[in-house]
Amino acid sequence: MTDQNKLRNLEDLGEFALIDHLTESFENRNPTTIYGVGDDAAVIAISEEESLLISTDTLVEGVHFNLMYMPLKHLGYKAVAVNVSDICAMNGTAEQITVSIAVSSKFSLEALEEFYEGIKLACAHYNVDLIGGDTTSSLSGLMINISVVGRAKNDKIAYRSGAKDYDLLVVTGDLGAAYMGLQLLEREKEVFRANPNIQPDLDGHDYIIERQLKPEARKDVIEFLKELEVVPTAMIDISDGLASEILHICKASKVGCRLYDEKIPIDAKTSMMALEFNIDPSTCALNGGEDYELLFTVKQEDFEKVQSNPHMSVIGHITDEKDGIYFIDKSGSAITLRAQGWKHF
Amino acid sequence: MTDQNKLRNLEDLGEFALIDHLTESFENRNPTTIYGVGDDAAVIAISEEESLLISTDTLVEGVHFNLMYMPLKHLGYKAVAVNVSDICAMNGTAEQITVSIAVSSKFSLEALEEFYEGIKLACAHYNVDLIGGDTTSSLSGLMINISVVGRAKNDKIAYRSGAKDYDLLVVTGDLGAAYMGLQLLEREKEVFRANPNIQPDLDGHDYIIERQLKPEARKDVIEFLKELEVVPTAMIDISDGLASEILHICKASKVGCRLYDEKIPIDAKTSMMALEFNIDPSTCALNGGEDYELLFTVKQEDFEKVQSNPHMSVIGHITDEKDGIYFIDKSGSAITLRAQGWKHF
Repeated sequence: MTDQNKLRNLEDLGEFALIDHLTESFENRNPTTIYGVGDDAAVIAISEEESLLISTDTLVEGVHFNLMYMPLKHLGYKAVAVNVSDICAMNGTAEQITVSIAVSSKFSLEALEEFYEGIKLACAHYNVDLIGGDTTSSLSGLMINISVVGRAKNDKIAYRSGAKDYDLLVVTGDLGAAYMGLQLLEREKEVFRANPNIQPDLDGHDYIIERQLKPEARKDVIEFLKELEVVPTAMIDISDGLASEILHICKASKVGCRLYDEKIPIDAKTSMMALEFNIDPSTCALNGGEDYELLFTVKQEDFEKVQSNPHMSVIGHITDEKDGIYFIDKSGSAITLRAQGWKHF
Repeated sequence: MTDQNKLRNLEDLGEFALIDHLTESFENRNPTTIYGVGDDAAVIAISEEESLLISTDTLVEGVHFNLMYMPLKHLGYKAVAVNVSDICAMNGTAEQITVSIAVSSKFSLEALEEFYEGIKLACAHYNVDLIGGDTTSSLSGLMINISVVGRAKNDKIAYRSGAKDYDLLVVTGDLGAAYMGLQLLEREKEVFRANPNIQPDLDGHDYIIERQLKPEARKDVIEFLKELEVVPTAMIDISDGLASEILHICKASKVGCRLYDEKIPIDAKTSMMALEFNIDPSTCALNGGEDYELLFTVKQEDFEKVQSNPHMSVIGHITDEKDGIYFIDKSGSAITLRAQGWKHF
């Protein structure tokens, strides 16, 4: 088998199918394992009232981040935020993290201190404790693995699999900004590469750049849901683009869905930058990743509660599985929804 | 600052000092965080009776393992075993793991399947469930991060910090074999490199090679301790060599120690190979790593119970801190014990 073939093997499968394939023959043996592979976090039984939530994420230099425009402090902050986001996506509260890094000799002690400064800020912001980790050398670049431990009441845990016919599809905040921030940073990087005398032109684009470099986990939304007394029937965080996440919920819940283009919340700054790049703003929201907003479903009876919260937008509704998964564009045409989000393979 | 200086910065500090330095200003905010950075595992409160234990380990190709002689199936097994060992070192039971890998395009799907086959075997052997993880691409080689979740009764948890004056120092199994296995594999690799027609000469060395390629976590010892009704006053697993681990216990417990050379358990096969390599067998035990045996301290009154178990050897005793940390050689001379174990930086 040639190297080219090997690469294609993994690329063809994609990350999710690869994990499914590699782990499908594993079986759970411990009664404390409530839920394993396949959701935003695993669920471990600890008492009649509560469960522990565990999730883990790996970030690889050159694959998930580029240190040319990502300051190490922001990277540390973001690495924690994306893990906290996984716990939010289960309707839980993050409490502890472990941070493991493998780092090549090109990094100075000062660089690592800056990275940990970002981690510390995020720990303070999300009220999370650093409880362990590992620091080792790597042969090339920086690799980060964070595991997060959270907690949730057993009757409040939101899996991907609980969406039911007629439930409303809700998203928080606005979408596509992190993706446009990345496009802008990539463009200015190329300009700088071509001519290092030209300074990056990032003026007036703080919002989309911050959405890329310093995303926040929607811990506030978990608080809002608690105050509103709404328990999502299903939930996931948007790391790979809206389309991909909707498909995850539909697959896990064995339901269909109708998503309305005109309802997707997109900030004006995102739209403007998208048009400058000749990209349809909806495409940024559907396929751009790293917004770390929450996508969830609620029962129809919760409509008014959700509607009353300025951070939540109803963008569609769940249907029977046989009715398919459709994107309804602004002209009213129904288009089969496909994932074209991030594939790191 | 030159690259050379940067490297020296991290190298000079060493892994443990680096983690201490980077995490010293972090504070814990959650009452559920019982113990954070600094032991074999972190401890999280879950009930009046029990705690959860969390540990994480990163293995980097070219730093922690060499695929030239480490089959991927063994690597998968070992990656789980070393994590389970961290839970054993707290006197707990491992129940769940997450496995994250970053893998370059040189690996085929078949290679990953083999790796996961090893993980599956270890999960079955240690009764551990795979509950999550992450599969992503890397720019070079294979990097593995495993986090493990365990459980222990609150009154049975063994920290590094509980050793008291007059306690006995106990080690399980025998030491130095994994290090001699590595030396043998490295030698045969060089022979093979010099002349690929010469087959590796590993005949009769199964024991030390298996100790290197397929170490086991001493889950059985945790069972023995339970049966004997012995709770170690302090415990650690031997990943970096006996000397380094004794120093960890003494530092954390603020005690001194006397370790007797003649009491250190070393298998005859290890000694023979050490002599072939012109290495003092005791040096293998003191400074060779990856034995994954357990080192612990018990009260004097538990001497007979420990003595009755064939897997446990009393190798010394704890003293007052001001009496220092000494290695008593076979001639009776006391030598200050120093760590010369693994430093990956």
